[in-house]
Amino acid sequence: MKFVIQRDRLVQSVQDVMKAITSRTTIPILTGIKIIATDEGVSLTGSDSDISIESFIPKEEDEDVIVDIKQPGSIVIQAKFFSEIVKKLPLETVEIEVIGSFQTVIRSGKSEFNLIGLDPDEYPHLPQIEDGKVFKVPTDLLKTMIRQTVFAVSTSETRPVLTGVNWQVGNNELICIATDSHRLALRKAAIETDSDAHYNVVIPGKSLSELSKILDDTTEPIEIVITENQVLFKAKHLLFFSRLLEGNYPDTSRLIPTDSKTAITLNAKEFLHVIDRASLLAREGRNNVVKLTTVGDDLIEISSNSPEIGKVIEQIKSQLIEGEELKISFSAKYMMDALKALEDTEIHVYFTGAMRPFVIRPIHNDSILQLILPVRTY
Amino acid sequence: MKFVIQRDRLVQSVQDVMKAITSRTTIPILTGIKIIATDEGVSLTGSDSDISIESFIPKEEDEDVIVDIKQPGSIVIQAKFFSEIVKKLPLETVEIEVIGSFQTVIRSGKSEFNLIGLDPDEYPHLPQIEDGKVFKVPTDLLKTMIRQTVFAVSTSETRPVLTGVNWQVGNNELICIATDSHRLALRKAAIETDSDAHYNVVIPGKSLSELSKILDDTTEPIEIVITENQVLFKAKHLLFFSRLLEGNYPDTSRLIPTDSKTAITLNAKEFLHVIDRASLLAREGRNNVVKLTTVGDDLIEISSNSPEIGKVIEQIKSQLIEGEELKISFSAKYMMDALKALEDTEIHVYFTGAMRPFVIRPIHNDSILQLILPVRTY
Repeated sequence: MKFVIQRDRLVQSVQDVMKAITSRTTIPILTGIKIIATDEGVSLTGSDSDISIESFIPKEEDEDVIVDIKQPGSIVIQAKFFSEIVKKLPLETVEIEVIGSFQTVIRSGKSEFNLIGLDPDEYPHLPQIEDGKVFKVPTDLLKTMIRQTVFAVSTSETRPVLTGVNWQVGNNELICIATDSHRLALRKAAIETDSDAHYNVVIPGKSLSELSKILDDTTEPIEIVITENQVLFKAKHLLFFSRLLEGNYPDTSRLIPTDSKTAITLNAKEFLHVIDRASLLAREGRNNVVKLTTVGDDLIEISSNSPEIGKVIEQIKSQLIEGEELKISFSAKYMMDALKALEDTEIHVYFTGAMRPFVIRPIHNDSILQLILPVRTY
Repeated sequence: MKFVIQRDRLVQSVQDVMKAITSRTTIPILTGIKIIATDEGVSLTGSDSDISIESFIPKEEDEDVIVDIKQPGSIVIQAKFFSEIVKKLPLETVEIEVIGSFQTVIRSGKSEFNLIGLDPDEYPHLPQIEDGKVFKVPTDLLKTMIRQTVFAVSTSETRPVLTGVNWQVGNNELICIATDSHRLALRKAAIETDSDAHYNVVIPGKSLSELSKILDDTTEPIEIVITENQVLFKAKHLLFFSRLLEGNYPDTSRLIPTDSKTAITLNAKEFLHVIDRASLLAREGRNNVVKLTTVGDDLIEISSNSPEIGKVIEQIKSQLIEGEELKISFSAKYMMDALKALEDTEIHVYFTGAMRPFVIRPIHNDSILQLILPVRTY
């Protein structure tokens, strides 16, 4: 194997596939990046066996030569050193050459590294996924849907299926749901699917977070292929494989209340700042809990009291308070996560009593819903 | 105590005095910030008993009202909460009021915090330093001198005096020296002193690092007062006290070789990049050591070899190599620290053999010197 490549492009691809590589793996070869040079270009692969990422660097793009392949071949190189080295090389181009028994020479200007590589034939094969049923989602929409749901997955392994996001695909709709059983985030969007494409799968939250970091903010569609135990995301020059979580995702539709006894209307960003301040003292104490109290027909009071530190009272105007008076306590962290997902919109919060889950929705948009369980404090 | 203050100014002062406060103190009241309101303005104090910082906010500045004092007084408030709160308050101004038994109310818009304060009379007094002998250094020069020496102090407590920077003042000159006994940094500068001002003191490296973070990059002079066991830095609206280290600082002048057997001339920044790359593989192994070899009369080779990972060879052109051929090994970290202190200048490196300390100096500037002890590798 021998090729000369533009350093910038190599650095970018290495950074992308590094997202799948962990030093804590039990399979030593997975600490490496697999490099394959063919007559079409160079592909890099990183994997932790749950997630696998393949980044392809074409020989030419827009009539620019990006890679000059002198001799096809393949090698596995320690990811940690390779990524540091390519970032710091002195010139715009890098020559990479394998010279017998997996020794790899990396040259750039007057800098020459000689790394001990690993046998590429021992690198695990990527999942084989047929290009059968594909559906497409604009990349920026996919990133938004991930961001608005993935924070709500469970971080505990007691119910592994809750560490993933439930994706329901069918009838030209994608619904993403995440819950850790204390709160729930739901986001849906119209997408193009084949009429017979119906899926109900659970994708690990970690996979979606990593995917989101790699994808550009573009409206270009990303292709998604779902099989029995894998999902594949195909973007330009990028393949992102993730295993699916096993087990049945709970039916969450019954959890979402359909009526309400108290409804308030607020600006999400303003409310976020109020909750943030009110929780400053509560963070020390038990569970970061704040209390919400309706005052008259247009004021909301948020308060918290930590006997050893002090107390705080915040007020925020509600455009309208409908229904019964209310006192309710909840986790400031869960509320802030939900409000961040809703961004700078006007929101309704629908309560059905101090001990029942409550729902937050944008006022002119039913594609997103956040649900939080209150905390019993008195 | 009651006053209304511009939030920005309060935030800035709180951030400054926080530099002296640690949560690991054994004196509970030092986890607080002392606030004193007088008819002239508001002063804040933070201290960990080694370092004390006082920041003063005047009532008015440039005809702008900054503080409106309603009632003078004082209080101590938990620094951690106070700093978080003032940063996040909603309005441009903040009202702070003590309402009996150290309860402190902080109001801004519809936000109201009620904190449990501490008795200001229990706060330790700042060192009493008479405004006797003062010398002045431009603030930006002081920051540069700190940056160019403080990294070389020892991080080990085996010889406590080496954790400080030795300051020698006299004959209109300030000399700063730091060494951890493996390398040494020296920087001197002409300053204005009284003819009878002679000092030889050791200032804790940590104090100088924190001071450097607080000071603005201005040419305004900072006043420095040295007593038997304290140093006081006086900038505009800021007092920074540090205790001095006890014990005699070693006489380092004998360590610095005056002759040389090999001299090379390089660009510091280019050399830094070469050393950085050459050390990428060495960081894993023993001590991060690289080898320097002269090649002919204008090439320097930097190499490192980590048997399990690989090896690297870098070359850099020297404008001139004078004297004997040389092979020498040294810590890449020490070399990089020294080169960063020298910034983007042309440098001479003077060697007196593979086992003797070597000296790095800018070619047209004898106010700064870096010395490094080599490592025996063969």
